[in-house]
Amino acid sequence: MQKRLGVLGLLCAFNTLADPRATGDLGIIIERAQGSVQIIEHSHQKYLSKINELGDLSHASVVFSRDQRYAYVFGRDGGLTKIDLLNDEIDKRIIQAGNSIGGAISQDGKLIAVSNYTPGGIKIFSSDNLELIADIPAEYDHGKLSKTVGLVDAPNHHFVVSLFDAGEIWLINVKNPQQPVVTKFKQVGKQPYDALLTPDGRYYVAGLFAEKGLARLDLWYPEKGVQRMLADYGKNDAKLPVYKMPHLEGWTVTDDFVFIPAIGQAEVLVIDKHHWQLVKRIPVAGQPVFVMAQPDGRQVWVNFAFPDNQHLQIIDVKNLMVKKNLKPGNAVLHLEFTPRGEQVWVAVRDDDQVVVYDTESFAEIARLPADKPSGIFFSHRAHKMGL
Amino acid sequence: MQKRLGVLGLLCAFNTLADPRATGDLGIIIERAQGSVQIIEHSHQKYLSKINELGDLSHASVVFSRDQRYAYVFGRDGGLTKIDLLNDEIDKRIIQAGNSIGGAISQDGKLIAVSNYTPGGIKIFSSDNLELIADIPAEYDHGKLSKTVGLVDAPNHHFVVSLFDAGEIWLINVKNPQQPVVTKFKQVGKQPYDALLTPDGRYYVAGLFAEKGLARLDLWYPEKGVQRMLADYGKNDAKLPVYKMPHLEGWTVTDDFVFIPAIGQAEVLVIDKHHWQLVKRIPVAGQPVFVMAQPDGRQVWVNFAFPDNQHLQIIDVKNLMVKKNLKPGNAVLHLEFTPRGEQVWVAVRDDDQVVVYDTESFAEIARLPADKPSGIFFSHRAHKMGL
Repeated sequence: MQKRLGVLGLLCAFNTLADPRATGDLGIIIERAQGSVQIIEHSHQKYLSKINELGDLSHASVVFSRDQRYAYVFGRDGGLTKIDLLNDEIDKRIIQAGNSIGGAISQDGKLIAVSNYTPGGIKIFSSDNLELIADIPAEYDHGKLSKTVGLVDAPNHHFVVSLFDAGEIWLINVKNPQQPVVTKFKQVGKQPYDALLTPDGRYYVAGLFAEKGLARLDLWYPEKGVQRMLADYGKNDAKLPVYKMPHLEGWTVTDDFVFIPAIGQAEVLVIDKHHWQLVKRIPVAGQPVFVMAQPDGRQVWVNFAFPDNQHLQIIDVKNLMVKKNLKPGNAVLHLEFTPRGEQVWVAVRDDDQVVVYDTESFAEIARLPADKPSGIFFSHRAHKMGL
Repeated sequence: MQKRLGVLGLLCAFNTLADPRATGDLGIIIERAQGSVQIIEHSHQKYLSKINELGDLSHASVVFSRDQRYAYVFGRDGGLTKIDLLNDEIDKRIIQAGNSIGGAISQDGKLIAVSNYTPGGIKIFSSDNLELIADIPAEYDHGKLSKTVGLVDAPNHHFVVSLFDAGEIWLINVKNPQQPVVTKFKQVGKQPYDALLTPDGRYYVAGLFAEKGLARLDLWYPEKGVQRMLADYGKNDAKLPVYKMPHLEGWTVTDDFVFIPAIGQAEVLVIDKHHWQLVKRIPVAGQPVFVMAQPDGRQVWVNFAFPDNQHLQIIDVKNLMVKKNLKPGNAVLHLEFTPRGEQVWVAVRDDDQVVVYDTESFAEIARLPADKPSGIFFSHRAHKMGL
């Protein structure tokens, strides 16, 4: 009896004394081939745990709950998984569609919206228990369903999404989530393929795939409709094959500029954020995929499509020129900055590594093993708009 | 024996099953008269615990550790207290000076800097154990010590601070914290009384008390020195008594504008952030104290010095006019937005209450009891620059 008590006491002490985990410096690394994720802690570049059986993560993204306890992983196969970052386990998992591309969490943290290809549309779930709250088919042209892309949350209880096949942008008010109110902007341009929201939540900018230019919606003045811009850019350039669809979502906005990956060209486009004019085309090492500004807006980091995906280039925003070329390894797929930007984490798929750099000195700080890492997502995203 | 085991088992089960606490939605409410703070959770407007014996909190501010587990409270009496938000207890407390005004946490989260009046200067501590790492007296004019104000963290391992008596701004590089490198900007103007850093960490703007205008340092180009601006503003206005020194620190910056409380005048100054010119003087209900922009930059909230401190006014950034006047109660001292701005928490000292509003509808969501509440600080500040 005494012995049992001793063991129980020890177990008890272990539970009591085990240091509780804070959630401000946690992150998720997607391991795309295995369908698993790592939970990491970025203050000490530390692996914490691994969660398996998340389905097809070949194109996956993550949002975080308002308290940063839960990560919601959107898988390619329509899987939506809620991971408990404190208990290192799956809290709930559903298959909500046949093919999905990403998601968003509402401003108040209560709703998870998912952007689906098949069936084309948006579904809205309770962030608490993943129960379906609203189903919004992306219907156009008398009953056709469009793929949806570029889904973001926006201020005052909105989601914004683009319809790839329909060429539309929808502004969805979810103040009453059971009955979303959809404002449709039609003929915004051919095949919007992704979008970004400026960090203040004001401008929604969609890239167009089947024609030149970008479509912009000013959420302060939605009644003014969607404006086109840069329609003339590159119209005489040779058309090159597009190796990988670039991404727009991310912090590609600095104080004065929006940085956009060109499609099919080895260049980054710089747009003046005040007049929405093209300022410069910066030549880079290949076709850019992610073009991401540091939190301080002083440098912009760019990775590339195959066959140039061993490069990582850094643009100096002072003079809009490439200042540094890094080679972290083979197949650099994604990068994520620490909240105040002193470090950047880089996923190097074919080397099964995540590399951490000091953003000021470019010194390598750490290499962590990871199985075919793709996306990296840190928990401070919980407090940002449009991610 | 069986009984003891039962009790132990129960205790053990309690410790194991007690829901662990995430740290993304925590906050601190200063109770200035008692020298205590409340720990709250803002997803459900919930009181969690109270921490006592923090000394003189008549002018207190708070920063958060990188992982959001700890809050560092800077008291008026030179007290620096590290509070453990997961265990609801004081982790460590020191008295580091005779009279202090505020502090900051370094970009990498490793250093806590405190701004002192007596003895005038900056002290830098380890965020881990609060041990002194560097002492930087604010020496000027052959051995005099200046009060220091407007201390902020800045990118690439810097702190920036203003010297009230010396009329200087110091840029402190703490890459090697044992040997800080100080760059001094002299004759920036008479009596800088507070400062703000733009959200991207680029511009440090100090307000001047003993003469008109503001002093601005561009941290991208420190070699250009400190620039003066708005030196002509209000030079013919009648001088009014200043009831309370206004504060500059906070999110007073939107996409295009910097909003500044006028000193001794019932108006908010709007400055064009691109040309640093005065755009408008907005008449308001009294002498403004805090002028704070919502995270989406669409509205600016203003509170006031006695005798107008029952008001809370909201400026519409679209047209730069007051759109709403709220009366939360008597002596509105401070306000804090939730991370993505759907709610604002307001401290109403003389009613012993904190009032929570919906920022879109202005509906009152909750009232929480608090003893003479002054400052409110939420944990997502851990991930912002310059707060």
